[in-house]
Amino acid sequence: MSSFTRLTVLTSVLILIFAVCSIKETAAQELRTYNLGECALESGEMIEECVIGYRTVGELNAGGTNAVLLPTWGFGTSEEKLASENYVGPDGWVDPDHHFVIVVDAFGNGVSSSPSNSRTQPGEAFPQLTIRDMVRAQHRLLTEELELNGLHGVVGISLGGMQAFEWATTYPDFVARAVPVVATPRLSANDLLIIDLFKHLLLGAVVEGCGSECENLARETTQTFFRVMLRTPEHWDRTLSRDDVPGFLNQVRDQAQNLPDTYDALTQVRASSMMDVSEPFDGSLDRAANAVQAEMLIVVNDPDLLVTPEPSRRFAELAGARLLETNSDCGHQAFLNACAGEEITAAIRDFLW
Amino acid sequence: MSSFTRLTVLTSVLILIFAVCSIKETAAQELRTYNLGECALESGEMIEECVIGYRTVGELNAGGTNAVLLPTWGFGTSEEKLASENYVGPDGWVDPDHHFVIVVDAFGNGVSSSPSNSRTQPGEAFPQLTIRDMVRAQHRLLTEELELNGLHGVVGISLGGMQAFEWATTYPDFVARAVPVVATPRLSANDLLIIDLFKHLLLGAVVEGCGSECENLARETTQTFFRVMLRTPEHWDRTLSRDDVPGFLNQVRDQAQNLPDTYDALTQVRASSMMDVSEPFDGSLDRAANAVQAEMLIVVNDPDLLVTPEPSRRFAELAGARLLETNSDCGHQAFLNACAGEEITAAIRDFLW
Repeated sequence: MSSFTRLTVLTSVLILIFAVCSIKETAAQELRTYNLGECALESGEMIEECVIGYRTVGELNAGGTNAVLLPTWGFGTSEEKLASENYVGPDGWVDPDHHFVIVVDAFGNGVSSSPSNSRTQPGEAFPQLTIRDMVRAQHRLLTEELELNGLHGVVGISLGGMQAFEWATTYPDFVARAVPVVATPRLSANDLLIIDLFKHLLLGAVVEGCGSECENLARETTQTFFRVMLRTPEHWDRTLSRDDVPGFLNQVRDQAQNLPDTYDALTQVRASSMMDVSEPFDGSLDRAANAVQAEMLIVVNDPDLLVTPEPSRRFAELAGARLLETNSDCGHQAFLNACAGEEITAAIRDFLW
Repeated sequence: MSSFTRLTVLTSVLILIFAVCSIKETAAQELRTYNLGECALESGEMIEECVIGYRTVGELNAGGTNAVLLPTWGFGTSEEKLASENYVGPDGWVDPDHHFVIVVDAFGNGVSSSPSNSRTQPGEAFPQLTIRDMVRAQHRLLTEELELNGLHGVVGISLGGMQAFEWATTYPDFVARAVPVVATPRLSANDLLIIDLFKHLLLGAVVEGCGSECENLARETTQTFFRVMLRTPEHWDRTLSRDDVPGFLNQVRDQAQNLPDTYDALTQVRASSMMDVSEPFDGSLDRAANAVQAEMLIVVNDPDLLVTPEPSRRFAELAGARLLETNSDCGHQAFLNACAGEEITAAIRDFLW
């Protein structure tokens, strides 16, 4: 073994140990819940026994000016978020040594109020909600329970990024910095087609008469669709050989058991399908962008088969926001370290700190 | 109305009348069938009571040198093929005034032997076959029934183009010119993922216990997936507004009734999934390309979400074939007149005539 190889191995082991330790540390942050009573929704319906889950890391400073909100991505939880890559940590997007980090569970993720955990509105009886409804309830958490007067920043990926867009337009004077990553202020026509497909794939598992074999097949197909569309054709052709495909597909199908409860997933997918920050501004994206007071860093990747980057580009122009456009073949997962993560992390740190 | 406008309207009406008449003329060609008895398949199984449907237009010349074969695309029939756009006609890809055109129905299309029309091997009992099996049976039709000694050309789109690739590599001294359009000599890893998804979507309609509501949903989802993936995100965002999407999706779902019998569709999708001209050449695409004696014009479009253009590009290089690469946002449907059809038609006419 050459000294270079030995050094590399040693470095890798040290990085691994460090990574495992920091994951344990951050993942250990306890889940807390806030009971909001009833949550009124835009539809006129309400979530009964409305609960939001969240975890905090770091301390609020004396001036109350260092709070950063991280909403969860689609089907994700605050626990996963804290354990994933380097979003929270000394080399992360946010650093608990400087920031009071609040990771908040989005409705429908099985932790905050969801079809799967609602006592009085379970499954199909759970009301349909919007991304704006998620953000309004989070505003109550931050003001009523955590007694904050504002946020230093809100940073979110995908569904989390949609929440960041909503925060910036719905509570313009509460948010100093907003960073939506691979998200959109308003779905494009193609996004609407893709999300409709996703919704129908999910419905396949709960359609009348669908037994266990039918349900398994539907969940496997949904999981495969989701996994394939997360990346790009270029990515799969670059990273998989033809011979790899059967093993990869088996692995993906085995993960179908990780898919959330179907009604939970439907709640978040339907909320995403209605994503439109311009809706309270008479459908004008221009007026929505003009309402924003926060500084914004909008991160998109092109290509992204799940969320078209164009509406984000346009919003950045209208709002005078900074735009970071990466070109990773990882598609919707460009933010991962193995993809364009380093570039994105550097930009977010630079912007937030 | 200005004279220019009047002229435009008159021209449009004349073009329309001409188009309708030429469709009627070609579509009137009668379906003929050839009974092959048994068709031995690569799997070792056989199609019992094996039948191929076909239609011919034009006359074989004295030297027998003007026959052009048009195999059908996925789920397509010889009737549709003759009625579609301008593949066969005076301004078409082939011209019955010059060519003896044979449009052949591919196995599994509901006209030639298929799960839906087999008396002794219906539905699930129908044996699995390959694109090469389709071509071998077509070779029997051309030599045994039509007594041809060779083909001036074989031209096919998508599944039809896969058959053109197989013709060129399996019967190298029978084919003088081969034109595969938006097809592939061997599926890429991404193609294998997409086609596996397609297969599982189809299976959703016939999974155990799936009743009529489940079957309708599965067919609608399959149809939506197919329609969306036929084009590209850029295309949908360019041609549809957000408000158009619900109407478009309703229209697509209504067309789910046009989807073929599920086992027919599965037969062709599975055959496509095994497409690999290199298989009889120990997996060497180089050796397969070297076997080709035909002149080839290989047409691909980039982007194409259903069939990756890269393997076609590589085959063109290895075989010294002409490559036409268009860049239409119509994706897999680039060959349509409203897309890159004019450019493609001109190239094919130039090549074949």
